Amino acid sequence: MRQSKLFGQTIKEVPKDETSINAQLLLRGGFVDKSMAGVYTYLPLGLRVLNKIENIIREEINAIGGQEILMPALQNKEDWKITGRWDIDVMMKVKTFFDKEYGLGWTHEEVVTPLAKKYIKSYKDFPFYLYQIQTKFRSEKRAKSGILRGREFSMKDLYSFHTNEEDLNKFYDLAKEAYFKIFERVGVKNKTYLTFASGGDFSKYSHEFQTLSSAGEDTIYICDKCKIAINKEIVENNQPECPQCKNKNLKEEKAIETGNIFKLKTKFTEAFNFKFLDEKGKENLVLMGCYGLGLTRLMGTIVEIFNDQNGIIWPESIAPYKVHLVHLGNETEVIEEAEKIYNALQKEKIEVLYDDRKESAGVKFKDSDLIGIPLRIVVSEKTLKKNSVEVKKRSKDEFDIIEIDKLIDFIKKN
Amino acid sequence: MRQSKLFGQTIKEVPKDETSINAQLLLRGGFVDKSMAGVYTYLPLGLRVLNKIENIIREEINAIGGQEILMPALQNKEDWKITGRWDIDVMMKVKTFFDKEYGLGWTHEEVVTPLAKKYIKSYKDFPFYLYQIQTKFRSEKRAKSGILRGREFSMKDLYSFHTNEEDLNKFYDLAKEAYFKIFERVGVKNKTYLTFASGGDFSKYSHEFQTLSSAGEDTIYICDKCKIAINKEIVENNQPECPQCKNKNLKEEKAIETGNIFKLKTKFTEAFNFKFLDEKGKENLVLMGCYGLGLTRLMGTIVEIFNDQNGIIWPESIAPYKVHLVHLGNETEVIEEAEKIYNALQKEKIEVLYDDRKESAGVKFKDSDLIGIPLRIVVSEKTLKKNSVEVKKRSKDEFDIIEIDKLIDFIKKN
Repeated sequence: MRQSKLFGQTIKEVPKDETSINAQLLLRGGFVDKSMAGVYTYLPLGLRVLNKIENIIREEINAIGGQEILMPALQNKEDWKITGRWDIDVMMKVKTFFDKEYGLGWTHEEVVTPLAKKYIKSYKDFPFYLYQIQTKFRSEKRAKSGILRGREFSMKDLYSFHTNEEDLNKFYDLAKEAYFKIFERVGVKNKTYLTFASGGDFSKYSHEFQTLSSAGEDTIYICDKCKIAINKEIVENNQPECPQCKNKNLKEEKAIETGNIFKLKTKFTEAFNFKFLDEKGKENLVLMGCYGLGLTRLMGTIVEIFNDQNGIIWPESIAPYKVHLVHLGNETEVIEEAEKIYNALQKEKIEVLYDDRKESAGVKFKDSDLIGIPLRIVVSEKTLKKNSVEVKKRSKDEFDIIEIDKLIDFIKKN
Repeated sequence: MRQSKLFGQTIKEVPKDETSINAQLLLRGGFVDKSMAGVYTYLPLGLRVLNKIENIIREEINAIGGQEILMPALQNKEDWKITGRWDIDVMMKVKTFFDKEYGLGWTHEEVVTPLAKKYIKSYKDFPFYLYQIQTKFRSEKRAKSGILRGREFSMKDLYSFHTNEEDLNKFYDLAKEAYFKIFERVGVKNKTYLTFASGGDFSKYSHEFQTLSSAGEDTIYICDKCKIAINKEIVENNQPECPQCKNKNLKEEKAIETGNIFKLKTKFTEAFNFKFLDEKGKENLVLMGCYGLGLTRLMGTIVEIFNDQNGIIWPESIAPYKVHLVHLGNETEVIEEAEKIYNALQKEKIEVLYDDRKESAGVKFKDSDLIGIPLRIVVSEKTLKKNSVEVKKRSKDEFDIIEIDKLIDFIKKN
């Protein structure tokens, strides 16, 4: 992509009410635009990042047997009355001119449970796992953390269905592993802790995935021995204690809840009377688990973690492009060589943003650091004399001088 | 994918109010589930089809320079007041518990125009083309045509921005060509007519893409010489006449509006005071075009066109799978050979749905015809004696007996 044509250039000033690091850097870098409080447009660069996160999540959820579907945002009022959640504050309510009323989905148990009930009757059809990657809506009174907590946001929600608790527990552990694979691939695994949180009526605990960040709204206590954590909300007045090893020497940290998994058991299947026939022809309630992961929140978390005073430092797996090609100076031979390299990279299917603008070196370097693409290649008269270009990682200070003939090989190895 | 594990089996009965062919076949085939009137869940098979349509559209819009973004569904009431469209019936309105009111997007001029204005100032930055593939909402009082006219649906909307009318006209023609490429790739080009329709305040005509189908809500008059059509709504009391050759011998047909393109000119840029600085530093209003294409409607149209009394006949480009592998009988050698072929197809990255269920030949053939995958491979004892399988196209009556050793080659050529 030629940067001169890219919609969503870097900007210098961001709205004053955007105080979070993720909002400031994503707005300044031209990744998102603020449409309203808590509501963002994803510009071309931002959408590329979001799509990469989406594909990683899809691959890992498919790998544990998840089947992708797409449920609607418009939700049936009557189904939410059944579970008693129609009048919860977070629900946005929709009205048509002919006075039909809908809920706007912030979660999908009230859709997926009746859906599964329609198609599945026999124990032979279990277990099965349905998920979607879809837009959710929440009435957040104060939307002030950028894309960490939006009123409209993208989420992966997975629901599992089982005939017995052992099977639910088995898949629950598999889902945990899949989550850590996702966090590993996007670069935040070493900052993410499986965290014990409130289990509601049906389980002692639910589990959150809490990623350490000063921008986090949650406080957790980490057990360094077990590498797990406990959410402050369930500690109450007691001294926090590791739920596994009972260690009381825990470290308090701020963290962002990037995922949440929950053994719902029969909470929703009872409400919708979703039963299966067992081997003996007897009816039993189906057991459920649910597994949420916010895509836009994860993107915001990554920005909160990977940045310096000059801008974002994208992990390569989710960077909008792998290479930022920049030419300095507008001499014919410089531009010709840059164009040649641009074409060669495209031919090799190496994702490249090409800064072909006639701007000063200062502007170009500043924008390049702000956008945060992993590898920067600079074409200038100085190095061209040696048939070379300058190659620098965004995450490092030093750079290499690489012969143009060896450039593609060098990039493939880096 | 093993059909025994697939969520969304074929069903025999569909809701009585679903009278359209597309709804009946898509519901019976397990492609969609009806959540509410005009609101559907896309099950795994249906989502695969939708994703293939989406990718074809994305490729063709990228090819004419479109830049993909993602705008929000929640829309700013004040911006819709500016254009005077806040109180239009089709707009669904959203309320939060703290009494904030939003519109729910059925189109995005009120978002994209202020967005573009924020980033673009100079004539040097024109033209540019922004598009998204996104979920839209409409207050349809009667939702009765299956996925042809939903209350929640998926749409590609593209917006172009220009400094002069000549440039707008040039891109408008390019967009027309891209649309026909899309229609060609999904198999409906020979049934789709560029149709002259009402142009509103700013243009004599807009253009619709009307695809012939008895399920269509529109009536068009086709000129066989020019291969274009005119929408009945602009004919009024006159005899219809070809807008190009003035031929009055036109053919009346029912058609589905699968696309719509429109020269908005300054309609929205004037409302939002979106101007650019020209070469002389003078301010001028920006010109716009908009280009809509409903993904879910296109999917429904394809089903309306490609079917017979037994079910859907998917064009290969958008079929959920290329091959439907079916074993008949449950003898060990039959199942072993079917499993071997299933693995071989997957290794060759040929998309395959494998009917591994222990059902009768009658049930399996009936389901296979209903689902409509282009190529059916039957493994049975009878042909195995000759080390062969039966291969049949969904669109043909006759079948071939193919030696198993030559099967992969045969599939690749078909």
